[in-house]
Amino acid sequence: MTPAEQRDLLQAVADHRLDVAAADQQLTAAQQPLDFANLDLERPQRTGYPETVFGEGKTAEQISQIIPRLRAQTPVVLCTRVTTAKAQAVQQRLADRQDVRYVAAARCLVAGEIPTPTTTGTIAIVTAGTSDIPVAEEAAVTAQAFGNHISRVYDVGVAGIHRLFAKLDVIRQAKVVIVAAGMDGALASVVGGLVASPVIALPTSIGYGSSYHGLSALLTMLNSCAEGVTVVNIDNGFGAAYAASVMNHL
Amino acid sequence: MTPAEQRDLLQAVADHRLDVAAADQQLTAAQQPLDFANLDLERPQRTGYPETVFGEGKTAEQISQIIPRLRAQTPVVLCTRVTTAKAQAVQQRLADRQDVRYVAAARCLVAGEIPTPTTTGTIAIVTAGTSDIPVAEEAAVTAQAFGNHISRVYDVGVAGIHRLFAKLDVIRQAKVVIVAAGMDGALASVVGGLVASPVIALPTSIGYGSSYHGLSALLTMLNSCAEGVTVVNIDNGFGAAYAASVMNHL
Amino acid sequence: MTPAEQRDLLQAVADHRLDVAAADQQLTAAQQPLDFANLDLERPQRTGYPETVFGEGKTAEQISQIIPRLRAQTPVVLCTRVTTAKAQAVQQRLADRQDVRYVAAARCLVAGEIPTPTTTGTIAIVTAGTSDIPVAEEAAVTAQAFGNHISRVYDVGVAGIHRLFAKLDVIRQAKVVIVAAGMDGALASVVGGLVASPVIALPTSIGYGSSYHGLSALLTMLNSCAEGVTVVNIDNGFGAAYAASVMNHL
Amino acid sequence: MTPAEQRDLLQAVADHRLDVAAADQQLTAAQQPLDFANLDLERPQRTGYPETVFGEGKTAEQISQIIPRLRAQTPVVLCTRVTTAKAQAVQQRLADRQDVRYVAAARCLVAGEIPTPTTTGTIAIVTAGTSDIPVAEEAAVTAQAFGNHISRVYDVGVAGIHRLFAKLDVIRQAKVVIVAAGMDGALASVVGGLVASPVIALPTSIGYGSSYHGLSALLTMLNSCAEGVTVVNIDNGFGAAYAASVMNHL
Amino acid sequence: MTPAEQRDLLQAVADHRLDVAAADQQLTAAQQPLDFANLDLERPQRTGYPETVFGEGKTAEQISQIIPRLRAQTPVVLCTRVTTAKAQAVQQRLADRQDVRYVAAARCLVAGEIPTPTTTGTIAIVTAGTSDIPVAEEAAVTAQAFGNHISRVYDVGVAGIHRLFAKLDVIRQAKVVIVAAGMDGALASVVGGLVASPVIALPTSIGYGSSYHGLSALLTMLNSCAEGVTVVNIDNGFGAAYAASVMNHL
Amino acid sequence: MTPAEQRDLLQAVADHRLDVAAADQQLTAAQQPLDFANLDLERPQRTGYPETVFGEGKTAEQISQIIPRLRAQTPVVLCTRVTTAKAQAVQQRLADRQDVRYVAAARCLVAGEIPTPTTTGTIAIVTAGTSDIPVAEEAAVTAQAFGNHISRVYDVGVAGIHRLFAKLDVIRQAKVVIVAAGMDGALASVVGGLVASPVIALPTSIGYGSSYHGLSALLTMLNSCAEGVTVVNIDNGFGAAYAASVMNHL
Amino acid sequence: MTPAEQRDLLQAVADHRLDVAAADQQLTAAQQPLDFANLDLERPQRTGYPETVFGEGKTAEQISQIIPRLRAQTPVVLCTRVTTAKAQAVQQRLADRQDVRYVAAARCLVAGEIPTPTTTGTIAIVTAGTSDIPVAEEAAVTAQAFGNHISRVYDVGVAGIHRLFAKLDVIRQAKVVIVAAGMDGALASVVGGLVASPVIALPTSIGYGSSYHGLSALLTMLNSCAEGVTVVNIDNGFGAAYAASVMNHL
Amino acid sequence: MTPAEQRDLLQAVADHRLDVAAADQQLTAAQQPLDFANLDLERPQRTGYPETVFGEGKTAEQISQIIPRLRAQTPVVLCTRVTTAKAQAVQQRLADRQDVRYVAAARCLVAGEIPTPTTTGTIAIVTAGTSDIPVAEEAAVTAQAFGNHISRVYDVGVAGIHRLFAKLDVIRQAKVVIVAAGMDGALASVVGGLVASPVIALPTSIGYGSSYHGLSALLTMLNSCAEGVTVVNIDNGFGAAYAASVMNHL
Repeated sequence: MTPAEQRDLLQAVADHRLDVAAADQQLTAAQQPLDFANLDLERPQRTGYPETVFGEGKTAEQISQIIPRLRAQTPVVLCTRVTTAKAQAVQQRLADRQDVRYVAAARCLVAGEIPTPTTTGTIAIVTAGTSDIPVAEEAAVTAQAFGNHISRVYDVGVAGIHRLFAKLDVIRQAKVVIVAAGMDGALASVVGGLVASPVIALPTSIGYGSSYHGLSALLTMLNSCAEGVTVVNIDNGFGAAYAASVMNHL
Repeated sequence: MTPAEQRDLLQAVADHRLDVAAADQQLTAAQQPLDFANLDLERPQRTGYPETVFGEGKTAEQISQIIPRLRAQTPVVLCTRVTTAKAQAVQQRLADRQDVRYVAAARCLVAGEIPTPTTTGTIAIVTAGTSDIPVAEEAAVTAQAFGNHISRVYDVGVAGIHRLFAKLDVIRQAKVVIVAAGMDGALASVVGGLVASPVIALPTSIGYGSSYHGLSALLTMLNSCAEGVTVVNIDNGFGAAYAASVMNHL
Repeated sequence: MTPAEQRDLLQAVADHRLDVAAADQQLTAAQQPLDFANLDLERPQRTGYPETVFGEGKTAEQISQIIPRLRAQTPVVLCTRVTTAKAQAVQQRLADRQDVRYVAAARCLVAGEIPTPTTTGTIAIVTAGTSDIPVAEEAAVTAQAFGNHISRVYDVGVAGIHRLFAKLDVIRQAKVVIVAAGMDGALASVVGGLVASPVIALPTSIGYGSSYHGLSALLTMLNSCAEGVTVVNIDNGFGAAYAASVMNHL
Repeated sequence: MTPAEQRDLLQAVADHRLDVAAADQQLTAAQQPLDFANLDLERPQRTGYPETVFGEGKTAEQISQIIPRLRAQTPVVLCTRVTTAKAQAVQQRLADRQDVRYVAAARCLVAGEIPTPTTTGTIAIVTAGTSDIPVAEEAAVTAQAFGNHISRVYDVGVAGIHRLFAKLDVIRQAKVVIVAAGMDGALASVVGGLVASPVIALPTSIGYGSSYHGLSALLTMLNSCAEGVTVVNIDNGFGAAYAASVMNHL
Repeated sequence: MTPAEQRDLLQAVADHRLDVAAADQQLTAAQQPLDFANLDLERPQRTGYPETVFGEGKTAEQISQIIPRLRAQTPVVLCTRVTTAKAQAVQQRLADRQDVRYVAAARCLVAGEIPTPTTTGTIAIVTAGTSDIPVAEEAAVTAQAFGNHISRVYDVGVAGIHRLFAKLDVIRQAKVVIVAAGMDGALASVVGGLVASPVIALPTSIGYGSSYHGLSALLTMLNSCAEGVTVVNIDNGFGAAYAASVMNHL
Repeated sequence: MTPAEQRDLLQAVADHRLDVAAADQQLTAAQQPLDFANLDLERPQRTGYPETVFGEGKTAEQISQIIPRLRAQTPVVLCTRVTTAKAQAVQQRLADRQDVRYVAAARCLVAGEIPTPTTTGTIAIVTAGTSDIPVAEEAAVTAQAFGNHISRVYDVGVAGIHRLFAKLDVIRQAKVVIVAAGMDGALASVVGGLVASPVIALPTSIGYGSSYHGLSALLTMLNSCAEGVTVVNIDNGFGAAYAASVMNHL
Repeated sequence: MTPAEQRDLLQAVADHRLDVAAADQQLTAAQQPLDFANLDLERPQRTGYPETVFGEGKTAEQISQIIPRLRAQTPVVLCTRVTTAKAQAVQQRLADRQDVRYVAAARCLVAGEIPTPTTTGTIAIVTAGTSDIPVAEEAAVTAQAFGNHISRVYDVGVAGIHRLFAKLDVIRQAKVVIVAAGMDGALASVVGGLVASPVIALPTSIGYGSSYHGLSALLTMLNSCAEGVTVVNIDNGFGAAYAASVMNHL
Repeated sequence: MTPAEQRDLLQAVADHRLDVAAADQQLTAAQQPLDFANLDLERPQRTGYPETVFGEGKTAEQISQIIPRLRAQTPVVLCTRVTTAKAQAVQQRLADRQDVRYVAAARCLVAGEIPTPTTTGTIAIVTAGTSDIPVAEEAAVTAQAFGNHISRVYDVGVAGIHRLFAKLDVIRQAKVVIVAAGMDGALASVVGGLVASPVIALPTSIGYGSSYHGLSALLTMLNSCAEGVTVVNIDNGFGAAYAASVMNHL
C-alpha cells in the first residue's frame, strides 16, 4: 500500500465510504509479512535502489504477492527472468492493477512507470551479434527503470570490425558502456581499448561446442588486455545495468 | 625524451656544451622504435590513461628500454609485477635517472612522481585478510599513480564481521570501493549489500585446497547476490584500480 | 510386518478369523526378499538410524514394495526426491495404508508418524533466498522424522544482512545450524563467524551463469574463512539434516 | 599483555621496580594496533574459540607480532602451516618466551600449554595411508589445543579392509570421527556406514595423475553414499578438528 | 544372408521354388554396401568378436538394415542403447524375422540366440545400488551374448558393507569381476582389495549435485588404492562386459 | 625376519653363539609394529600378491623400515616412485643387505630377486613415444617382479603408423597388452582395434599446452571406440602392470 | 535486390508496368536497414566470402528478412543450423522465391544455386562413424556453396583401421582433408600421419559418459602427435569447410 | 651419415686414408638402430616433411644421437623446446659438427642450413604482445626451416587496435597468417575478420589469474566469430608453422 493509497483508505473511512472492519482488514493484509519471503524494504536507504524481483524459480503466485508490496515503496518494480506464460499468470492475478506491463524482448515484468531519466549521462549497450539481444534488452529495461538514458548499438562484432567503427561516436558519447557478447567475447577488449569510459563486459551464453554456455566469453573478458574492463555473470543483463546505473549516477 | 629534455638538449647544442654529432645520436636513439615492443603512445588521447608496463615476462633489459620512452610522454610510468631482483636490475640500468623507485609491498616500479589527486573522490581498498594485502597494495599504488585519493581498510573478513561494521563509515565515504578477497570471497557480497557506490570485486589467489588459486573467490564474486558488483581477474590489483580510477573521475 | 502386526495375525489365526493358508501366504510375502533391492535392515543397530529411501531413479512400484518392508522395522519411513506424480502413484498402490503422506514442499513421502522430538536441542535451518526453500524443507522433514525440534529462518541472505541480524537470536539458540544457499553461498561464512554451534553448509543449485548448478556455492563453502563449517553435497537437504540430527543427539 | 601481566606491571610500578616511563611504553606497545592485521579478539565471546593464526602467507615477523597479542587473551595460541624454517625464525624472534614450541609432524607452532581436556568425549582421527599423516597430525594438535581427547587410527585404507575392522572398536568409542584420505577417498564412506557418531571427511592431496591434488577424494566424500558424513576443504586438518571439537563439546 | 540361407536360396532356385530374377535380386541386395555405414565384417578374424551396434544416434531404419547384414556373419547380433520406442520400430521393420528380441532392463536388442557359454569361468557383476542396475544389465546381456556365465550381486554398496561380505563367496568364485557404482564409487576399491581376480570398475552416472553425472565415481575408480582395478567409461556396461569376456576367455 | 632367519637365530641361541637377551631383543624388534604404517601382511592370502611400497611421500627412513618387514614375507619387494637421491639414502641405510637394487629407468627400488616367470604368457608393453618410456619401464619392472615375461615395443605412435604395423606380430603374440601414450593417446584405440587380447590403456602426462598433464590422453582412452580397452590412472605404470599380471596368470 | 532485379524494376517503371509509388516503396524497403541485424555486406571485398547466416537463435521471421538482403549481393546464401520446422516456416514466408531449398541431412537452408566449382582441388570429408555424418554434411554443403569439389569417406574409424587404408587413395588425392570424429577423436592423428595435405580436425559431440559432448575429441585433436593438424570448434562443420575452402583456393 | 659423407668415407678407404676396420665401425654405428627411439625416416615420402625432434623430455645424450641420424636424411634438422643448458650440452657432444646452431629466442637447435625459400608466398606471424614472442619465434624458425618466407608483425594487440591497422598491409600480403596471443586471445578474431587468407590461431600461455595457462585464449580462438580460423595447441609454435608451411606450399 503506497502512502497515497493509505491516505485514500483513511479518507474513505472518514467519509464512511468504507467501514472500519474492511479498512482494518485491508491495512492488516498490507502489513502482514509474506511467509516465503523476507523483503528488503530498507534497501533504498542503504544502497539507493529498491529491491528487484528475480523471477526465475518463483511461482506466479509468489510474484503476484511480492509486486504490490514492493510497489508500495517505490514508483517502479522490475521483475526479471519471467517467461511469457508466467507473465500472463501474474497479470491475471493482478488484473485490477493497470500498471503491470510485460516487456517480452527483455523477459521482464514492469509494474509502475519507467521514470524520466534522473541523470544526463547515457549508458551505451553494445552487442556482438543479434543473438545477444535478449540479454541486452534485459539490461536496457533495467537501466531505464533506474532512471538512465540508453543508446543501443547492436550487431557490431569483431568479425566485421568496420561496423563497430561506424558506431564509435555513439559509443564514445556514453558515460558508461555495456558490451554483451558470446562466442569469443572479443568485442569487450576491442571496445575497452577505444573508449575512456568504464566498460562493463557482459558475457552471454550464445555459442556452441566449446563455448560452454558462456564460459569462453567469460574467460576472454576476465582476461581482457584492455584496461578498465570489469565483468559480470553470464547472461546477467540486470546486473550489468545495475552497476552501470550506479556509475552513471556518480 | 620529454619535451623539456629535448629543449635542454637543443639549448646545450646552442651553447656548444654538446656537439652536434652527440646530440644527433641521442635524438635518433630516443626516436628509434623498439624492436620487441610497439608502444601505444596514443593511448592517453584515446582512453585518457598512459600505457602501463606489465613487468611479468619482460626482461630487465626490456623494461629499462620501455620506461624512458613512456616517461617521455607522461609524468609517471607504472610497471607492475616486478620482482625485487628484476627491480634492482632495472634500477642499475637506469642509475642515471633519479626518479625510478621500487614499491616492494606492491611489487611495482614507479618512474616519476605520484601526482597529487586530480579528483576529490576516494577509492576505498578493502581486504578480507592480511594475505590479500600485496594485491591490494598493487591496487593502491595504481590508484595513486592515476591521481586518486585512497583509503585502506584491511583484514575485515566475514569470519569476524564486526570488524567490517567498525569501518563501515570509511567505506561508505568512498566514491568507489575495491574489495579484495581470496578463500570464500564472501566479503564482496556483504560490502555490496551495504554501500551505494560501485563495488569492484578483486578475487585473490589466497587459499588452499579447493580454492584452486582464486577460482573459488572468482566464482563467488561473479555470483554475488548483491547488486552493483563487477569483477576483475584473479590477483589483478592493477586492473581493479584502473577501473576504479575511471569511475572515480566520472 | 511389524511385531504387533505379526502378533495380530497369529491371534487372528488362533481366533479362526483368518485361515491358515491366507496367513501363511501373508507371512511368506512379508519375509520374501525383494529381487531388486538389498535392504539394510541392520542399520539401526549399526548407526542408530533406519534406512531411508532415495526416491530418484526408483519406480513407484519399487517404492511401494520397499516402504512396507522398512515400515515393519521402524515407526516412520522417509522417502526423498519424489515427484508429485510418483507420490500419487505410490499412494494409490498403498491405498490400504492410512499412514503414507506426501509433503510437497519437501518432495518427500512420509510413511508413519513424525515422532515427538527425542532430544531438547533445536536444529536451525537458515536460507539465503526463497529459491533455496525446497532444499531446506527436505532438511526440515528429515530432521523432524529423526526426532528433532527445528526452527526456520528463511530469506536472510547477505545482500541485506540486517535481515540476518534480526534473526540472530533464533539462530544462536539452536544446537546445530544448517545454512542453505546458492549463488555466492556467502551466508554460510557469515553465520559461521557469528555462532558457537556446528554449522553445516548446504549448497543449493540456485543461480545462473557461472554458478554452475551449485559449484560456485560449494566451493565458497569449502573455502569458508569461518571455522567450524562442514559441507554436504549440492541440494542434499537430507544429508545435511541427517548429520545435524546425529550432532543434535550427541 | 594478559590481565595477570598487566597487574604485575602495575605492581612493579607501585613497588618502584619499574619506572613510569618504561611502564608507559610497555603498556602503549601492548595496546597499539598492528598495522597489517586486525585481530578478532572478541571471537571467544562470539564463538567460544580464540582466533588461530594461519601461518601460510605470513612472514615470521608478522607471526612474531601476532602471537604475543593473542597469547595475552588466551592460554594457548595455535599457528598452523608453518615450515621448519619459518618456525625457527619465529622462535628466534620470541626467544625470551619459553612457551613457543614447534610440532614438526603437524607443521604447527604452539604458544602456551596444551590444556587438559575439557570434555570426556574422544575424537578419533583415522587415515587411509601413511602419507595422510601430516594432515592428520595438524588435526590432532588442533583438537588437543582446543581441549579434546584424541585417538589415532592410521593406515587402515580400504585396499586392506581387515585393518579397519581390527580397529573398529576404537573408532566406535569416539564421540566424533575424522577420516583423512587421499586417492580414492573411499574410507570415509566405509567408516560412515559403520559408526553412529558424526563423521568429518577430510580429503588430502595425496595421490597422483587424475587425483588432481585431492579433487578426486573431495568429490568422493561429497558424494558419499553413507549418511551423516560432512566434508571440509582439501588438507584442512585444522578445520576438521575445529568442527570436531565444536561437536565434541556439545 | 548366412551361408545356410544362401544355400537354401540356391536350392530353391534349383527346385524351381524361386525364380531366377527374384533370387538374383535377393542376393544382390544382401551384397550391396550400405551407403551410411561401413561395416567391419573382418572384425571376428582380427579380434575374435563380431561388430556390435551402438544404437544411440542411429535411426530405426538404419538399425533395421544393419542387423541382417551382421546377422549373416554371426549367430547373435547385439544392439545396445535402444529405447523401447526405437526397439518396437525395429521389430516392426524386421517382423519377418523371428529372432529379434528386446531386453528392456538392459536397453538392448538381441538378434539370434544367446549362445551357451564357451568357457567355464564366471563373470560376477556387482552393483552398489539399485539405480546402477540398468547399466549392470547391459553388461549382463553383453557378457552372455559373448558366451560367458554370469552371476549377479546387486545392491551391496559400502554404506552397509555387511551386505557385501555376505556375498563375498559368490564374488570370489568369479574369474572376472565387474563393479558398477555411481555416487562415491567406493565399492570398486573395497572389492579390489578383497579378490584375486581382475576387477573392472564401471562408473555410473547415478548421483546428484557434485557427482557430475559420474565424474565423481570415475575419478574415485581411477584413483583406487586397491591394485588390479582397471576402468571403463561412465555407464559403459557394454565395454566393461566386452573386456571382461576377453579376460574370461584367456 | 624371514622364517629362515628366525630358524638361524634360534639355532644360534641353541648353539650359545647368541645370548638370550640379544636374541630376545632382535625378535621383539622384528615383531614390533611400525608406528607410522600398518602393513597389510595378509594380502598375499587375499589377493595373491604382496603389498608394494608407493615411495612418493615416504621418507628414506620409512622406506628403510618397511622394506625388511615386507621382505621377510616375500621373496621380492618392489618400491615405486623413488628418486635417485632417495634411493641412495635407502641403500645406505640398508647397506648390510645385498639385495636392494635401484632401477633408475623405472624409478624403482627392488629388494630381493626378480623371480623366473611363473606363467608362459607374455605382457607386451607398447609406447607411443620415447618420452613415455619411464612410465613403461615402471610397468616392465613391476610385471617382471610379479613373475611375467614381457616384450617391449617402444616409439610406435600413430603419427608414423607403419612403425606399429612393423611390430604387430610381437604385439599379437602377447597374452595381454599395455599401451602407454600421452598427448593424443590415440595409440590405444588403434591397437585395441587390431588385437584379440585385453588392452590396458596407460595415459601418460607427456605433452604440453592443452594436454593438461595427461587428461587429454586419459579422456581419449576412456572414450576409445575400440572395444576391450580398460584404463588406469595417469602415469600409473605399476597399476597397469599389476592388472596385466593378474590377467596373464588367469 | 540484385542489380538485375533493380534493372528489371526500373525497366518496369519505364514500361509503365509498375507505377512509381509501388516501385518507390519496393526500392525503399530493399534499402532499409534491418533493426535487429547489421549485415556485413562488405565482407566479400574484405575476405572473399559473403556473410553466412547462423540460424540457431534466430527466428524464422528474422531469417526470412536476412536471406533476401544477402541474396541480393551474392548468388548463393547459406543458412546453417536450421531445424526442419524452422526451415518450413522460412520457406512459407519466402514462398514467392523459387530458390530456397532445405538440405535436411546438413540442417542447412540454401538460397540460390550451388555454384560450379571454382577451383580444381578437392576437399575430402572423412568421418570416424555414422553418427558424425550430420556434422560432415554441414561441411559438405558449405564447401560446395563456396565452390569446391568434395569427396566423402565415411565410417572409417580406427577401431577397424583397414577401412581407412582401403580409402587412402581417395584421401590422398584431396588438396585439403577434413576429419570429423567424436568419442576418442583418434582418426585425425592417424590421417594426419598419412597425408601431405592440410588436415582440419573437426571434433563432434558424439559419444557418452566422459566424452563430455566433444571435449574428449577436441583435446585429442589439439594434442595430435601428427603435425599439420589444425582444429575447429566442436560440431563446427561450417567453420571447417570455410577454412578448407580458403586453403583449397590458395 | 649423408650420402655425401658415405661417399667420402668410401673414397678415404680407397685412398688408404682410412683403414677398413675404422670405416667398418663408422658405417655400422651409423646404421645401428637407436634403442630408445624408432625414427620415422619414411616421413618425407609420406608427408613431404622430415621428422622434427621435440626436445622436451629428451636428454642431451638422446638428442645428440638423434640429430646425426636425421641429418643424414635431410639437409636441416630442427629440434624444438631445448633449454640453453641442454643446447650447450648437445653442442659439446656434437662439437665436431660445424652445423649445429642454437636459436635462443626460439628455444630451438638447428642442424644444417636453413634452406632458401621453396615457394614465393609469405607466412605472416602476428603477436598480440611482447610476451608472445618466444612462441612466435619458434614458429618463425620452423617456417624458415621448412622453406618459407616470413614476415613478423609483433605487439599489435587489440587494446591498441590502431597498431594492427598500421600493419594491415603487411598481413594482407601474406599467403597464410599465424596469430599468436595469450590473455583474451581476441586478436585472432579481429585478424580473421580482416583478411582473405587462412588464419592459424596460436594460443599462448601468457596471462595470469583466470587465463589458466592459455585455456582462456584457446577457448576464445575455438569460438572465434570470424570464419576461416583454425586452432593449434597452446604454445605450439612449431605446429602452427608446420601447418602454415603445408598451406603455403599448396
